[in-house]
Amino acid sequence: MAEQFIADLKRTHSCGQLGLGEEGREVVLMGWCQRRRDHGGLIFVDLRDREGLTQVVFNPEDSGGAHSEAHGIRAEYCLAVRGQVRRRPEGQDNPKLATGQIEVVVSQFEIFNPSLTPPFMLEEWINVGETVRLKYRYLDLRRPEMFSNLKLRHNAAQAARGYLNGQGFLEVETPFLTRSTPEGARDYLVPSRVQPGNFYALPQSPQLFKQLLMVSGVERYYQIVRCFRDEDLRADRQPEFTQVDLEMSFVDEEDVMALTEGLVASIVKAATGKEMRRPVPRLTYDEAMERFGLDAPDVRFGLELIDVAPIVADADFKVFRQVAEKGGAVKAVNGKGMASLSRKDLDDLTAYVANYGAKGLAWVKVKAGGEWQSPIAKFFSQGHMERINQAVNAEEGDVLFFGADQPGVVAEYLGRLRLELARRFQLTDPAELSFCWVTHFPLLEWDPEAKRWAAKHHPFTAPRPEDLDKLAGDPGAVKARAYDLVLNGSEVGGGSIRIHRPDVQELAFKALNIGQEEAAEKFGFLLEALTFGAPPHGGLALGFDRLVAILAGEPSIREVIAFPKTQKAACPLTAAPGRVDQTQLLELGIRVDKKS
Amino acid sequence: MAEQFIADLKRTHSCGQLGLGEEGREVVLMGWCQRRRDHGGLIFVDLRDREGLTQVVFNPEDSGGAHSEAHGIRAEYCLAVRGQVRRRPEGQDNPKLATGQIEVVVSQFEIFNPSLTPPFMLEEWINVGETVRLKYRYLDLRRPEMFSNLKLRHNAAQAARGYLNGQGFLEVETPFLTRSTPEGARDYLVPSRVQPGNFYALPQSPQLFKQLLMVSGVERYYQIVRCFRDEDLRADRQPEFTQVDLEMSFVDEEDVMALTEGLVASIVKAATGKEMRRPVPRLTYDEAMERFGLDAPDVRFGLELIDVAPIVADADFKVFRQVAEKGGAVKAVNGKGMASLSRKDLDDLTAYVANYGAKGLAWVKVKAGGEWQSPIAKFFSQGHMERINQAVNAEEGDVLFFGADQPGVVAEYLGRLRLELARRFQLTDPAELSFCWVTHFPLLEWDPEAKRWAAKHHPFTAPRPEDLDKLAGDPGAVKARAYDLVLNGSEVGGGSIRIHRPDVQELAFKALNIGQEEAAEKFGFLLEALTFGAPPHGGLALGFDRLVAILAGEPSIREVIAFPKTQKAACPLTAAPGRVDQTQLLELGIRVDKKS
Repeated sequence: MAEQFIADLKRTHSCGQLGLGEEGREVVLMGWCQRRRDHGGLIFVDLRDREGLTQVVFNPEDSGGAHSEAHGIRAEYCLAVRGQVRRRPEGQDNPKLATGQIEVVVSQFEIFNPSLTPPFMLEEWINVGETVRLKYRYLDLRRPEMFSNLKLRHNAAQAARGYLNGQGFLEVETPFLTRSTPEGARDYLVPSRVQPGNFYALPQSPQLFKQLLMVSGVERYYQIVRCFRDEDLRADRQPEFTQVDLEMSFVDEEDVMALTEGLVASIVKAATGKEMRRPVPRLTYDEAMERFGLDAPDVRFGLELIDVAPIVADADFKVFRQVAEKGGAVKAVNGKGMASLSRKDLDDLTAYVANYGAKGLAWVKVKAGGEWQSPIAKFFSQGHMERINQAVNAEEGDVLFFGADQPGVVAEYLGRLRLELARRFQLTDPAELSFCWVTHFPLLEWDPEAKRWAAKHHPFTAPRPEDLDKLAGDPGAVKARAYDLVLNGSEVGGGSIRIHRPDVQELAFKALNIGQEEAAEKFGFLLEALTFGAPPHGGLALGFDRLVAILAGEPSIREVIAFPKTQKAACPLTAAPGRVDQTQLLELGIRVDKKS
Repeated sequence: MAEQFIADLKRTHSCGQLGLGEEGREVVLMGWCQRRRDHGGLIFVDLRDREGLTQVVFNPEDSGGAHSEAHGIRAEYCLAVRGQVRRRPEGQDNPKLATGQIEVVVSQFEIFNPSLTPPFMLEEWINVGETVRLKYRYLDLRRPEMFSNLKLRHNAAQAARGYLNGQGFLEVETPFLTRSTPEGARDYLVPSRVQPGNFYALPQSPQLFKQLLMVSGVERYYQIVRCFRDEDLRADRQPEFTQVDLEMSFVDEEDVMALTEGLVASIVKAATGKEMRRPVPRLTYDEAMERFGLDAPDVRFGLELIDVAPIVADADFKVFRQVAEKGGAVKAVNGKGMASLSRKDLDDLTAYVANYGAKGLAWVKVKAGGEWQSPIAKFFSQGHMERINQAVNAEEGDVLFFGADQPGVVAEYLGRLRLELARRFQLTDPAELSFCWVTHFPLLEWDPEAKRWAAKHHPFTAPRPEDLDKLAGDPGAVKARAYDLVLNGSEVGGGSIRIHRPDVQELAFKALNIGQEEAAEKFGFLLEALTFGAPPHGGLALGFDRLVAILAGEPSIREVIAFPKTQKAACPLTAAPGRVDQTQLLELGIRVDKKS
């Protein structure tokens, strides 16, 4: 009986532990059957636990009755064995396995639980759809690669806490059932039963609470905390995600960025064993947009955007010239040595950038002597071609790409083109970790739909002091005391110095066209808190899922989350979300709209 | 300007740090004005930060312009000072203050933020209602006592993780948006926008996920995790609360209890500096009910329940005799030396136990020679009185209390009486930490309303193997492999060995009258997981809020939660829960019931 076995015999080793040093020792192992092989009189089982694999052997002489029962063992049976460690017979070592020099000859064993045939084999990845993996996540997580991801995440979390604890930070838990402040993304709502008709919201971040903790004099706060956003899940997002969230009092940007570099270096070290290069290079937002077209640039490779507007301003090519004359952007990317791109590839790239607003994509193949092969070559004089070649450092075998439009549009699609070219030509090494800071973000951005200024980060971000007087008259020119941390082209962190003075916060609300009444209704408690001696403060949040995924070399955050949801925000394992009893809704005083 | 000050001058010390060792040093301090006193030409400010208080002095000679500006400083202004440490003038030391031998003579200062007059002074506790404290929680948390609670909680959390990390546990995050499985308490629901009419539920605990992690081969899991229960908040509960949640594979009760004792000892040590007495004493459930009347007994004092049914079975007192004859319980508690209880006190105690189902409360004051002074004395022969006196060890000055009714009813009200007497006579030392385990709980309890057996813990608790065959015929007699950890009469932890075999889980569902269809609908995914080689496993969860509150010597868990909710599950600070926009509800496909 399982109970008796566990009471009598404790596990002595993991399945990843035994070597020649334990030869002759009696051991007890517990785990799962990865594979069973019958070889004439001998039965071999590869016993797996989270630490590794050990070969255990049943033979008629040593294993007695256990031998015949062992025929029944199948893949994923959970079992325990007791036996003696012995050196494997000559020539049967498995150098790929940590325990490959030994095997355990079984004298006693116990099947804790049999297993049905799994819907997929653990070694098999191809042909296993993600929905099946998520429905049987408990089998999927038995794969060593997945356990290794969970362990890396665990190590990263402990390193983060260890570092912050050492820096005088206090872990403080903030509420999950809080107030809805619809800014940016949608809130998940939770109906209140005690106050029918009223709702809690799940926090999109602990932003307001961490600021309140600074007003409380906590001085240094952190939390590894779940956050919630009810968005239509594009790309690689999850409705619930984890942040390493921190806030500090009596600091400026330099303090927060230095602290963050130390924090992230600890995480990187714990997760990968690598040293992070410090100080992390910095770019301003304007520079990032100029050179890379995106505010989270991948700086592992070149292909930078080069301004050619001054050159094309007097060329014959009307499309470019007119854009340049109207103050638009004309920029080029030099696809260095990308001559192998076929006409079809170029058509594909044109279609690709169209998704990002490009009305077309002019290209030039550079031939010997800098000669242009291109549909647009005929519109350029020899002199213009030479000047452009020089500006972009064109050489034989290069492919030049041009974008001409509003500056934001060109930046977006050439920025995306740049990433796509790097992907196609494998210009990036996923094992390289290339961090940069992006600073000096605009405080506000124009929302053309709502026809008003919106906060680029959030409404509590402090404007740079030298821009304070532009807030009323020229809000678009105001830069924020905000900073994003970017890793390999992904934003992995973002933060800012916050507004700590009530008068400045009111100015900011005014610039955002949030009236006094609305401000009081939504954020009154924060405004009031600022009137009681709020200290200067700022902080940052790391996107923990994304950071861990990159450090684990995984393309998706779902690979580093134990029980992730699908793109439709559903859990194939538990079938959440699901129907609930009508009585539950009655108690909450809500009803489901018939139309839905 | 604050920005300039912070950029130029970094804080050199905390306000709790300076002593004679720093005499003559130039320092920069930042914090809040606790008190300002004008003494002729001198202005004294007690500057407070989270680490302590330092007296800073402005005088016309050393402080220059700063001196006259310092007149404007008021309580809770946030400021920074730069100045020189000097020994306080003869006779002005403050031995109560860690920094009481020195003061800082200010040469430069900056008001970061003024403060309105706070609604209460930080030193003031009396006359400050809890609602006001919670509305201005950011001021309330500035009190050193409250910061000290947050810090104790932080230390306890780090100690818990440190211990579990050292024992090979992995911290794994489980979902908050999950499936509603209405068992026990009510779920908080979260409407799904993507699947209108469907709902997520916030987890009452990660129970199902941690079991799935064991099936996943994680072997040792933990999480310090928020849990949610939509209950009517009686006593000292919160709608969201924190558990130290853990689960282990290949273990039995002894393993989990030993591990837990190590864990809790680490927490106790980190929080209080005290060593926990180990091994923790154990009681069975039956023994706890017999001796203390409650399943979470406070074992710091005696006043145990003593069975007197055999003695009163043939006494003249009909009330007791009839109960004894029918197999009911007749028990006594000896209120040792409680002769000072007045008639009014005894009436109050009678009213008190009536709340717990007592139809009356017979009492006896023991006089010299064991003589009874009591309304019921006349119904007892001398022999009966002597035998009872002997059974309860009655001496002059004692007050005996009797209960007679169904065993469960007597246990409940005498158990409560016992606690109330201990409270009135201050029999417990809050600084004493008295742990015990309660084991051998019944697996099921009869739900008289639903007229069926319900799980005493939860439906996944394993029955003791020797009772397995009673599950069908005599379910009330089946004991569970469950264990609760009790501290000073509060349950601070509970857990069990879980069912790991699908056939046993089906038997348990059958005993709970959960049909196959209902089981499949609610827990199908767990049942299915058990069919794929689930390992034997068990675990436990500590009620972290309660444990920390007791260790902090606080009567309420609200004192150790940064932003707690009221008994009505509301937050006076943010005014959650609140109204939401109609468009939010439209998007979710729900509407508020008009009647509500």
